[in-house]
Amino acid sequence: MIIDCHGHFTTAPAQLATWRARQLAAVGTAGPDPAEPVITDDELRAAVEPHQLKLMDERGTDLTVFSPRASFMAHHLGDFAVSSAWSRICNDLVHRVSTLHPDRFAMGAMLPQSPGVDPATCLPELRRAVEELGAVSVNLNPDPSGGSWTAPPLTDRSWYPLYEALVEYDVPAMVHVSTSCNPAFHTTGAHYLNADTTAFMQLVQGDLFADFPTLRLVIPHGGGAVPYHWGRFRGLALALGRPDPETLLDNVLFDTCVYHQPGIDLLTRVIPSRSVLFAGEVIGAVRGVDPRTGHHFDDTRRYVDATPHLTDAQRAEVYAGNALRVFPRLAARIADRAAASAR
Amino acid sequence: MIIDCHGHFTTAPAQLATWRARQLAAVGTAGPDPAEPVITDDELRAAVEPHQLKLMDERGTDLTVFSPRASFMAHHLGDFAVSSAWSRICNDLVHRVSTLHPDRFAMGAMLPQSPGVDPATCLPELRRAVEELGAVSVNLNPDPSGGSWTAPPLTDRSWYPLYEALVEYDVPAMVHVSTSCNPAFHTTGAHYLNADTTAFMQLVQGDLFADFPTLRLVIPHGGGAVPYHWGRFRGLALALGRPDPETLLDNVLFDTCVYHQPGIDLLTRVIPSRSVLFAGEVIGAVRGVDPRTGHHFDDTRRYVDATPHLTDAQRAEVYAGNALRVFPRLAARIADRAAASAR
Repeated sequence: MIIDCHGHFTTAPAQLATWRARQLAAVGTAGPDPAEPVITDDELRAAVEPHQLKLMDERGTDLTVFSPRASFMAHHLGDFAVSSAWSRICNDLVHRVSTLHPDRFAMGAMLPQSPGVDPATCLPELRRAVEELGAVSVNLNPDPSGGSWTAPPLTDRSWYPLYEALVEYDVPAMVHVSTSCNPAFHTTGAHYLNADTTAFMQLVQGDLFADFPTLRLVIPHGGGAVPYHWGRFRGLALALGRPDPETLLDNVLFDTCVYHQPGIDLLTRVIPSRSVLFAGEVIGAVRGVDPRTGHHFDDTRRYVDATPHLTDAQRAEVYAGNALRVFPRLAARIADRAAASAR
Repeated sequence: MIIDCHGHFTTAPAQLATWRARQLAAVGTAGPDPAEPVITDDELRAAVEPHQLKLMDERGTDLTVFSPRASFMAHHLGDFAVSSAWSRICNDLVHRVSTLHPDRFAMGAMLPQSPGVDPATCLPELRRAVEELGAVSVNLNPDPSGGSWTAPPLTDRSWYPLYEALVEYDVPAMVHVSTSCNPAFHTTGAHYLNADTTAFMQLVQGDLFADFPTLRLVIPHGGGAVPYHWGRFRGLALALGRPDPETLLDNVLFDTCVYHQPGIDLLTRVIPSRSVLFAGEVIGAVRGVDPRTGHHFDDTRRYVDATPHLTDAQRAEVYAGNALRVFPRLAARIADRAAASAR
């Protein structure tokens, strides 16, 4: 079984973007009716079947944890009410995809974060996403400002209400920023990777998992710069009087969104296999075909299959075993589906 | 011959920090006399001989490009006049070290950058550093704000006067930020690496080397996240209609400040040897001994010696050949010294 823990709904029907444009044009007023972007089930099927599902079939991915388009979360736009309405709509859509193809998609939720607003305001949508929509994962943006980095580190107590709810539900968070509105940072070529590195170092400096021993955070894009600089992080932890970063790896996992063989070889050489989750970030930042190999850059299964640093048992962990452990609501969903089809 | 292209004077006599503290306490007034931090030659020798030079001897480093302490540049503090006085003092000190030990140190200069101030204001100090102090390299801070990233990308025309002078002198710049005053970013565990990644992506997006075909920029700390995510950068360049990032590698070089074997193995597997410069960032961010190996994390020569991805000829390029090409004023200095000692 192959589970991709990091896919975004980047091919949503055009009504979604149209509604969002109207919402942003109307910031400061009541805005358009959230019930308005009417998208039929057939339109949703047409949005995923020839795109996401086709790629999953081609690459042998059984199931994807599917969340709203990360760069469109854009928490920096508007205020909490704007983010709140937008999150509900986006979460409802990925929920519907996961209902139309329950064996192929499980839902990841976005949160209605807004810069300078107490993260606890996200709790109602987090609870709705898990309890009513069946979310198995949540995307947490460590920089709702979109590249100004005005939020406190993830170890700050202002984030704790979210962690308490995640622990209560046994749901992990993927630490994932959104669009950069800072011209210094290209969104997918700098801001995403910087956020991954930044978040990990915040966790090295802090002691978050003493307070939340069962919390799991997934750091996407192969952990940004972290595995490549693992010696640096080990040395910094030593200098700071912090435990070796390897001690974080029961709570922190890295995905395999690294788009060439040497990168995946490094990741699997440095990071224990129990802390690596298969993913491609499909359909995402890098959609092209590598002219050197003839294959898509983001077809990460090829690299994971080929890396010499995983035994067959470890490869099975990376492909599915770890995901079933880290996303217990996903495991329960799969078990329920299997039981239902056996009846 | 082994040249380390990236060392900082982090063990300067205490008078330097004392003067700086007085300067910062007096911001808004004329400040203390720049001639005041009187440091004798004996004090300077005592500051480098049992520290920097001892490590260079132990590790077999013949010569280090030695620049002022990066985290102390702190361009965000005070205004241009503050940065200007501070740069002169710091540059004078590394110049004196390079004069006391002319075969072991060549000078790298800092610039009196200040957030929101035209980079062209740095030209007088850049010219003084090269013409009067013999600087062979310059450190250029892409984020003088210290973690707010308010400066435009390095491809913006406001930086061009500096590039024109660097091309005129045939002097490369190392792209190196200073202290982060943003609590989200640990200085050496996040901000430094993020800056490296950010700068490279700015160069992928822009077309700087069409305007400055002979300009060389050194991206330190192994290029941040870039070599680990080389496939991502290749795919993004393709999507943006930009040339393959490999075409940047005549103008952009990465140093070897990556503090474990797998990281150096990746760097030397992915990046052509002509674009890799030996360095340790000694005495720098990570000073400890790895309890697993019994060696200093930042003793990068061990990793470069051991990597299987360099032939002997390529290893010689990384250790010295590339540096002599990229820092022609260093090559000229070494040739002058050799000629003088032969007379």
